[in-house]
Amino acid sequence: MKARSLSVVPHTTRDFTLANWVRSTRRSDIQELLGLMSRPDIISFALGLPAREFFPSAALSEAAGKVLESDVAALQYGPPYQPLKTQIVSLMKLRGVSCAEEEVFLTTGAQQGMNLLARLSLDNGGQVITEQLIYSGFRQVLEPFQPEVLAVPTCGETGMDVEAVEYMLRKGARPAFIYAIADGHNPVAVSMEMEKRLHLVELARRYAVPVVEDDAYGFLSYESASLPPLKALEPKWVWYVGTWSKILAPGLRAGWVVVPREVVPALSVIKEASDIDTSSLAQRLIWAYLDSNPISDRIRMLRREYAARRDAMLTALHGRLSGYARWKPPAGGFYVWIELPEETDAGRLLEVVSRSQQVVYVPGHAFSATGGRHGHNCMRLSFSNCPAAVIEEGIKRLAQVIEETGEY
Amino acid sequence: MKARSLSVVPHTTRDFTLANWVRSTRRSDIQELLGLMSRPDIISFALGLPAREFFPSAALSEAAGKVLESDVAALQYGPPYQPLKTQIVSLMKLRGVSCAEEEVFLTTGAQQGMNLLARLSLDNGGQVITEQLIYSGFRQVLEPFQPEVLAVPTCGETGMDVEAVEYMLRKGARPAFIYAIADGHNPVAVSMEMEKRLHLVELARRYAVPVVEDDAYGFLSYESASLPPLKALEPKWVWYVGTWSKILAPGLRAGWVVVPREVVPALSVIKEASDIDTSSLAQRLIWAYLDSNPISDRIRMLRREYAARRDAMLTALHGRLSGYARWKPPAGGFYVWIELPEETDAGRLLEVVSRSQQVVYVPGHAFSATGGRHGHNCMRLSFSNCPAAVIEEGIKRLAQVIEETGEY
Repeated sequence: MKARSLSVVPHTTRDFTLANWVRSTRRSDIQELLGLMSRPDIISFALGLPAREFFPSAALSEAAGKVLESDVAALQYGPPYQPLKTQIVSLMKLRGVSCAEEEVFLTTGAQQGMNLLARLSLDNGGQVITEQLIYSGFRQVLEPFQPEVLAVPTCGETGMDVEAVEYMLRKGARPAFIYAIADGHNPVAVSMEMEKRLHLVELARRYAVPVVEDDAYGFLSYESASLPPLKALEPKWVWYVGTWSKILAPGLRAGWVVVPREVVPALSVIKEASDIDTSSLAQRLIWAYLDSNPISDRIRMLRREYAARRDAMLTALHGRLSGYARWKPPAGGFYVWIELPEETDAGRLLEVVSRSQQVVYVPGHAFSATGGRHGHNCMRLSFSNCPAAVIEEGIKRLAQVIEETGEY
Repeated sequence: MKARSLSVVPHTTRDFTLANWVRSTRRSDIQELLGLMSRPDIISFALGLPAREFFPSAALSEAAGKVLESDVAALQYGPPYQPLKTQIVSLMKLRGVSCAEEEVFLTTGAQQGMNLLARLSLDNGGQVITEQLIYSGFRQVLEPFQPEVLAVPTCGETGMDVEAVEYMLRKGARPAFIYAIADGHNPVAVSMEMEKRLHLVELARRYAVPVVEDDAYGFLSYESASLPPLKALEPKWVWYVGTWSKILAPGLRAGWVVVPREVVPALSVIKEASDIDTSSLAQRLIWAYLDSNPISDRIRMLRREYAARRDAMLTALHGRLSGYARWKPPAGGFYVWIELPEETDAGRLLEVVSRSQQVVYVPGHAFSATGGRHGHNCMRLSFSNCPAAVIEEGIKRLAQVIEETGEY
């Protein structure tokens, strides 16, 4: 059985002539899932949603009141808010990264951060190196450029195949950048081993190719000994993308990148053209929240809570799916990556599971960097947004279908 | 003397290879002015800032408290907030536009709205029709596409030269869209006459070319008899761009576009790739504010207040600059467009005026769609962000330099 998309909505219209690249795109599978998920009876392991029960609503409400009553600049256009940059410099130290305020660039979330960096460095039809399985939002970032995507495999135990990256570079590839996730990999849920980290940043230096490090989940590590992000190993050739979405709240739409200061002026122009500035209110709201609430306490709480959910999922998987599937305990992030037998079509399985058991997840091929079959027999299960009992129930239902219908 | 830019910051770096189009861009003059303006003694007629004294800080603070305490979805990722769309449908009725909720698409401000529409329809190197003098942020939207910009003149009394548009279309131009501002023109401060509106939308229909209508200032008209926006005259071929920035607060970074529903799916993909969604908090905050505070009352207040500032500027200009310059009283928007004698270099004049008199404005050529000398002898003066007494003082200082130094 061939891997299929959840749905394909062709972007043609009867009357309007759309840009060429638009006509070849389709709604992301994840966007489609947002629709499905609005059903109240569904158990969703699909989206990488932070758990709303951990949002600091009351503290943010207090911060909003304080900001709106004392700082009218929160409602105006304005330059990036320096005090927030100062806080981000401190936050980055928790990740082992030393940076200056002049290297911190505020964005409307990590998604925009990745967009700005792509626009900064990638020409139409240019080359990029990515893994074969990547965050699907990054594939969307790339689409308008119609680039040549040079994709390397990901090992479930050690991360990106950096040897393959070197091979490509040695053979003459000259990508605008290399896209990498070292921690809390989305979707493969792996942490890159230290040797590979060192090798990758050495390649970046040697070939003068920036690495765009997507560290959306970097603060959410569940093991005592975590490795330094790429940015900590190489301050110049690694362009770091961070976000408040997973450690504070996505609804604020705020993130940052850390880049060498020499690219900041160009980045400012691209940002201004995109949406003028990052919401002054969001910037000040985050600042005021952090000013009264130590972020390290919050990160500690989130690590504990999400680790418990991860463990609940691992326990359930162990009890229900051993022998049917393979997975590795993730050291960080929101996901477990499940490999089913090669002949399984995880897209087809999803149709059955969602219909008969009201359980949804994202099938692996939705993350294929090149739109191919990579990951066709895999499922990305998110444990972040379900309490332990729901995880247990969802895995039970999922296992029931997998056991019954060995054919998938 | 040749018109010069305020400053040119070349986007080259010693080490990094930037995308081709980035290397040919520079920081916008307006971005540079933000720096100048931070000096406390400056009188600024430069930026189109809404007056902070009219921001409804207290009501927004109350709305923020209500939303954050009652609706945890305000902090989560999520689909566009339907109740806000319903309010926008009502708001559009105030502009004489009938539309359905399915045609309203929420954006991170008007700047993003324009970006999404350009990305939807413009191919690299494609054609667009604009006026010779346009909102500089729109030129920034176009830059990455390196398009062929077909620019038509603007009459200071009747608006865009629609005959020239027809001429281009008849000669075979096939632009992705025509960019137009019918009301509160930025920078030329003109309202398009009715006949031209009808002609323009008729051309859009006849040649099947969408008009992107930038209506950022549309609600701020100061005359009793205002004309319908293009969107009200042609629901299908006009793509409308609206924003909360001028009628509520720019710091929220929220706006919308109204488009035929058949392009909404493609627009959703482009939006998701840009920044996933428009801030859930901003959407709900605006909704809660509007739910308790009739927007029509607020618009009425803003019209009254800004009309008073416009009148203060016109009175000052009449008293100080008659005989030295020409202008038309604007029917709406934030600006007066001043034409100095042909031999004047408004960029050079700005350097003198800002240094010796601490007054700043934007010189006309900053708005040139093609980067040429158009508007070199003109000044765009914004009256929105200064109380009447400051306007009076600023025009006095400006006139002093112009009188003394007839050479500019």
